Amino acid sequence: MDIRKPIEVKEAVSRVMQFASLGKREEIDFHVCDGRRLAAPIMATNDVPSFHKSPYDGFALRSVDTVEASSENPIKFKVLETIGAGELSKKQLAPFEAIRIMTGAELPEGADCIIMFEQTGMFESQGQAFMEIYAPIPKDHNVMKKGSEVQEGEEVVSEGSLITPGVKAVLATFGYRKVMVSKQPIVGVLATGTELLEIDEPLEKGKIRNSNGYMVCSQIERAGAEYKYYGKLPDVLEESYQKVKNILDEVDILITTGGVSVGDFDLIPDIYKKLNAKLLFNKIAQRPGSVTSVAVKDETLLFGLSGNPSACYVGFELYVRPVIQTALHNKTPFLQRTKAQLMDDFPKPSSFTRFVRGYYRFGSNGLEVYLAGQDKSNVVTSLAHSTCFIELPGGSEGYQKGDFVNIILTDHIQGATEF
Amino acid sequence: MDIRKPIEVKEAVSRVMQFASLGKREEIDFHVCDGRRLAAPIMATNDVPSFHKSPYDGFALRSVDTVEASSENPIKFKVLETIGAGELSKKQLAPFEAIRIMTGAELPEGADCIIMFEQTGMFESQGQAFMEIYAPIPKDHNVMKKGSEVQEGEEVVSEGSLITPGVKAVLATFGYRKVMVSKQPIVGVLATGTELLEIDEPLEKGKIRNSNGYMVCSQIERAGAEYKYYGKLPDVLEESYQKVKNILDEVDILITTGGVSVGDFDLIPDIYKKLNAKLLFNKIAQRPGSVTSVAVKDETLLFGLSGNPSACYVGFELYVRPVIQTALHNKTPFLQRTKAQLMDDFPKPSSFTRFVRGYYRFGSNGLEVYLAGQDKSNVVTSLAHSTCFIELPGGSEGYQKGDFVNIILTDHIQGATEF
Repeated sequence: MDIRKPIEVKEAVSRVMQFASLGKREEIDFHVCDGRRLAAPIMATNDVPSFHKSPYDGFALRSVDTVEASSENPIKFKVLETIGAGELSKKQLAPFEAIRIMTGAELPEGADCIIMFEQTGMFESQGQAFMEIYAPIPKDHNVMKKGSEVQEGEEVVSEGSLITPGVKAVLATFGYRKVMVSKQPIVGVLATGTELLEIDEPLEKGKIRNSNGYMVCSQIERAGAEYKYYGKLPDVLEESYQKVKNILDEVDILITTGGVSVGDFDLIPDIYKKLNAKLLFNKIAQRPGSVTSVAVKDETLLFGLSGNPSACYVGFELYVRPVIQTALHNKTPFLQRTKAQLMDDFPKPSSFTRFVRGYYRFGSNGLEVYLAGQDKSNVVTSLAHSTCFIELPGGSEGYQKGDFVNIILTDHIQGATEF
Repeated sequence: MDIRKPIEVKEAVSRVMQFASLGKREEIDFHVCDGRRLAAPIMATNDVPSFHKSPYDGFALRSVDTVEASSENPIKFKVLETIGAGELSKKQLAPFEAIRIMTGAELPEGADCIIMFEQTGMFESQGQAFMEIYAPIPKDHNVMKKGSEVQEGEEVVSEGSLITPGVKAVLATFGYRKVMVSKQPIVGVLATGTELLEIDEPLEKGKIRNSNGYMVCSQIERAGAEYKYYGKLPDVLEESYQKVKNILDEVDILITTGGVSVGDFDLIPDIYKKLNAKLLFNKIAQRPGSVTSVAVKDETLLFGLSGNPSACYVGFELYVRPVIQTALHNKTPFLQRTKAQLMDDFPKPSSFTRFVRGYYRFGSNGLEVYLAGQDKSNVVTSLAHSTCFIELPGGSEGYQKGDFVNIILTDHIQGATEF
């Protein structure tokens, strides 16, 4: 039997990441850019505000007219008109004239300060509106100056950022009808295994429905890429090889599930050989997913994920996801790792690093993490409840409730710059 | 002027949530269900495994034949054939016969235990394969028993759960070609404001581009609902009223941005009156967004969000989002709240509760939170960098770097059962 030498997880990630590269850019419509990543920074196309603006409802006036004002000596202003946001005053303020101005409106010509309604007295005399003030107002008081928030030409949001509602507000503010985003890499998915039935086939003796293929497609989508599902590989090497070879012309990354062990029916190692692909590794010191294999053919990464659901899931998140994130221009392509307190016992000793499916909670003393059901690599239902991996270093005798452990968040948007 | 009495944030949330209700269900195709929420639990439609299964590559045999085995007394078995995953053996094991079996294959008739290759001796004699063992093997050893993970009829994933890759694996495992999900509520969006230009219009003096409308649409999408954007309300009450009235027939929830203050051009309060809608509140003891108003007309919630971008953003996340999440059958409809250490000074005193836009990081000593730029309610660019609200209770004199504060996560999938 073929004896494989396991490499460390960090080394495996690093070998894969040597072949990760920035993906192409494309310009898409503003209305459909949610959840994509910027492939160019957003630059301010105008000052914000783009004019001297009133942040309150009040009166615009000349500060020079207010110098002598006091409660003993109120100063009276003639109110010329009212302007709302979006309206412009055509008047030029003369001494002791004011304009009633609403929130968001532009400061009228000649005015250099604003006083809020509440600080004035208002009255009418012979059909003419007046107001009076009881204290001097400094120049620029209550005026949001043109460019005080952002100046034209400034970088406002950096390349690689996720397009969130806040980023959309910025894009709209600066009139980005078209948005430069990273192109979504196309990731091919191929399942292997005589035992696999498709989702709509009735169960047969000795067979199981293909869950890995669909799960990986869903992981690809969650990671921001596009998937192409190619169904099942034939059981025969020559046909399988031809199929893989053809698919390589259509995808940026290829994932296979299953067939990577050293069992009699595991075709993937032979396909890699026949393709003349460069093997990066075929054994990792981790559980589950120790047989995860990665090869490169003409700069295309071929990920041979395990056929066990949990191992397949872990293999995708640890090795495929950062490659997709890099292609998407994300500067934090790795999953977020943090500390959490273990809330269950995990008594199993392990010589390899373990990635145990867990779920975390925000407790009153920080993050808490629980085991997501049974930890066997072929237990599919625990994946439904998993929001993180509990990372347990090799060489341990097991862990107890209360221990602090590293967790790797799989349900979280924020990433990390390093594995 | 209309004097409004502010109510507490918690009270405002609770008034709104009295009108939140479970949304309808719909059955959709498995292939497009990612990111939706289950409106019925996933029940196991078969046992998992659905047959006695081998978790390893090894030999299947009868435990009764192994009782006398020891290193001094190896027991020899005739190897009848090899079966891979998905294949069935047609043989019935006789005493001292074994079948070579690969991971995932069904235990052959008559066999009741499995021994791994590594623990056997293998040899050939006259073209016939044999193996021998050196220790007794207990019944059921290395056999994954039918139903040992899940039994048919068990609930595997609960109603209201988000459909993640792990949930998709479960759906595929149990042959759910169609999936019962919650229907996405339709949320109408109307902007108000004479000052608003559309995204593709050139900037004019005194005007700004409408960012709130698009931002809210993006927030709706992120919250899992569908939006219908109706553009700008006319400046005239009667026309605006008619437009709102017509839209109410087409949406489950209506959001307006702007026009809720007591300024001269704020039409929303008058529209609510004319509609004969029941006003839940029009002033909240919070910053930003104190003028956020909510009314109900024939069980449809009308959210009058502030025209200031940050206030609008906060108003959506605090008040609209949990209503959408409830409609989607999410049992944790509120945003996750947790403690974090403030990494910037925030010296401003405040009598009202503040929701300061911040971003959080997973630090080595727990969560850290930073201010996302300038904290003015009309600063749109800070929203692009915000991943949480820093919740600062009213009556404080300000906060210093190092203080522990509550943060409310706006970028996170996990929710909370309470505000």
